[in-house]
Amino acid sequence: MRAEILSTGDEVRSGAIADTNAAAIAEALESGGITVMRHTCVGDDTELIAEVLQAMARRAEVAVVTGGLGPTMDDVTAAAAALAAGVALREDPEALTQMERFFRSRGLEMTAANRKQALLPDKAVVLENKNGTAPGFRMQLGDCRLYFLPGVPREMKPMLARHVLKDLKAHQQAEGRFHRVDVVTTFGLPESVVGEELRDLAAADSRLQIGLRVLFPEIHIRIYSHGKREEGLETRIGELKIAIRERLGKRVLSEEGRRLPEVLGGMLLDRGATLALAESCTGGLMAKQLTDVAGSSGFFLLSAVTYANAAKRAVLGVGSETLAQYGAVDETTAREMAEGARRVSGADYALSTTGIAGPDGGSDDKPVGTVCIGLATPEGSTAFRYGFSFGDRDMNRRIFAAMAFDRLRLYLSGLLPLKKVRT
Amino acid sequence: MRAEILSTGDEVRSGAIADTNAAAIAEALESGGITVMRHTCVGDDTELIAEVLQAMARRAEVAVVTGGLGPTMDDVTAAAAALAAGVALREDPEALTQMERFFRSRGLEMTAANRKQALLPDKAVVLENKNGTAPGFRMQLGDCRLYFLPGVPREMKPMLARHVLKDLKAHQQAEGRFHRVDVVTTFGLPESVVGEELRDLAAADSRLQIGLRVLFPEIHIRIYSHGKREEGLETRIGELKIAIRERLGKRVLSEEGRRLPEVLGGMLLDRGATLALAESCTGGLMAKQLTDVAGSSGFFLLSAVTYANAAKRAVLGVGSETLAQYGAVDETTAREMAEGARRVSGADYALSTTGIAGPDGGSDDKPVGTVCIGLATPEGSTAFRYGFSFGDRDMNRRIFAAMAFDRLRLYLSGLLPLKKVRT
Repeated sequence: MRAEILSTGDEVRSGAIADTNAAAIAEALESGGITVMRHTCVGDDTELIAEVLQAMARRAEVAVVTGGLGPTMDDVTAAAAALAAGVALREDPEALTQMERFFRSRGLEMTAANRKQALLPDKAVVLENKNGTAPGFRMQLGDCRLYFLPGVPREMKPMLARHVLKDLKAHQQAEGRFHRVDVVTTFGLPESVVGEELRDLAAADSRLQIGLRVLFPEIHIRIYSHGKREEGLETRIGELKIAIRERLGKRVLSEEGRRLPEVLGGMLLDRGATLALAESCTGGLMAKQLTDVAGSSGFFLLSAVTYANAAKRAVLGVGSETLAQYGAVDETTAREMAEGARRVSGADYALSTTGIAGPDGGSDDKPVGTVCIGLATPEGSTAFRYGFSFGDRDMNRRIFAAMAFDRLRLYLSGLLPLKKVRT
Repeated sequence: MRAEILSTGDEVRSGAIADTNAAAIAEALESGGITVMRHTCVGDDTELIAEVLQAMARRAEVAVVTGGLGPTMDDVTAAAAALAAGVALREDPEALTQMERFFRSRGLEMTAANRKQALLPDKAVVLENKNGTAPGFRMQLGDCRLYFLPGVPREMKPMLARHVLKDLKAHQQAEGRFHRVDVVTTFGLPESVVGEELRDLAAADSRLQIGLRVLFPEIHIRIYSHGKREEGLETRIGELKIAIRERLGKRVLSEEGRRLPEVLGGMLLDRGATLALAESCTGGLMAKQLTDVAGSSGFFLLSAVTYANAAKRAVLGVGSETLAQYGAVDETTAREMAEGARRVSGADYALSTTGIAGPDGGSDDKPVGTVCIGLATPEGSTAFRYGFSFGDRDMNRRIFAAMAFDRLRLYLSGLLPLKKVRT
């Protein structure tokens, strides 16, 4: 099945916001075994939208359209759909009922402007929006099934799942087709190396395809399986995951698509262990990433973002002599930071980062991209020093954070050389 | 001038990555007074790209194309451009020289695969890429001027500025045209209210247009000025900014497009003052936002991300009785957190957040969206309590952080009722 995506709205057209809806829709469709051929974005222009809808309907069997379903003058997508289909707009009683229900549930009064949102192209089927006032709709244009969804992501996404993917999946299942995407996450090898290692694996079974995705600094391996529903495909996916793990070893973070902070959090929760951080160059990024993990309050106790040396001394107890002798970016300092975070928080483990994310602050001895990572454990503490050359502050901070998390992941897995740990 | 944008590549087409390039290009072109009519995205498909290029060239006077200029088999954009123009590919000596220079500067050897990247459509003009191996190029197709840039954002963006915007600006200046975008940033009023307040201002001068952009939780007012270069337009922009400030008052953050953390950082730097944070529900987000500000080491000393109550006690000295009596989400606790962060860091000011970002953890008394913010100053300390109903963890954390930063901004501006500050 071939699909196209259309995003409408002057905010997206003019670049005021990036079109993240198109990516979310494309990913969902592709994961369901539907090939997305093209995305298009145009502004709030009735004739232009109608022209694009007609062109899409000639080329694709499925089209997903977002935006322009709101109550204002700028919201012209329903009118454009009617124009494209050569039908009239009519007030849809079901759409009106759904909107009234939405307003009532919020204790609000429906305005006349909102009533306009119930005007749908003749023969369109309303799609309920439980998170906003703009109903979506589905209609047929030639051989193409078009779904119209609002542009606000938190309204669009549940409707995509509920009204589009389920509908398409039912359609595929009726035809006995099978689609699934599995994700194996990795950290520590460049994309080219991961690709090289897996080159022959993909060719072994025509029902499976392997794709790589860079979610810096992680590389995600996506296994697309498709075909008729039959015995053995799930076993084959399991065998492929084993083969991937044999080749990439400790670089594999998760076979269930989990990212590094979530994997580390899960390991800590499994052990009933707690973690504290002492961040300098990562500036709160590690804390942010950990507290984005559901259930993080079960293992995460503290991050001391000690930007100033005085704060490293006062909060973490880093020695004045250490800072004077070695400076802030040093393995001894990193180790004392981690020890201090562990001590002050009472956590089982602590990680620290101190480095030079750039763009300024580098020297010949410690160029931009240098990071020292401290790890404190019940067995003792250690530190590491690495150098990266991304030349980009944001990338440096993200690789520093991931390297730190990965040190603890490897330590907890028994894969970090213990001789390095100093008691 | 009408423009279109084409993004090529299976990673974007399939939704593996969002098309942030298109937004960046659209914004840059629109800021330069060029209207972007449409973005398109297709995969690595020579015939399809060629077909889209021809369609774009029929509709637009300018087109910017990204992606598909690399050394692999998938990189087919130059071949597609040649196909669209009905010309051959030829090895461009200037492109080859530039690539050799790039490899030499990195101490690397150029491979045969890279040599392919010097194959450009006949009559195309090479555009140097100083940050990668893939050269861009410019060519004419009918009445349309097409620019081809690589897809990697950190290579694309400098080339967009250097080769596309400068070129188009020179073209406009030769015709005596003037374009400028000014941005006034605001926080604290909903978009609808800002729009209502400014409704009549935009109509006063046809050379000026006002647009709103939501960069949650800030609302940015964009003033587009265009026309023939003439006396008085800059004065008129200044008058408009004064009128905006008269209407929105203390809600205006900056007339130079600066966002809240940068504005607050600037105020602190101006005063030679320092800041510490004590974060609970914001989980490091405030520290991350401050350390994203250039020069943040000049004012930012510490953020204690005290997720656990024990860490609030141990690091910040929050009283056990306070936590037992009032709980973690409380104004007294928030105030003690701020006082503790100020004391332990020696900072002049401290802010704290403790609240319920969700999705879980809410109660009837303290629903999801509740936040308490503490502010400690040399004059004494105070706390605030707010409730938000975005129902989204990420949005809650961002509004909590902004509310906290804004309390200090207003306090430093003398706009926060001083009677609330407790000594």
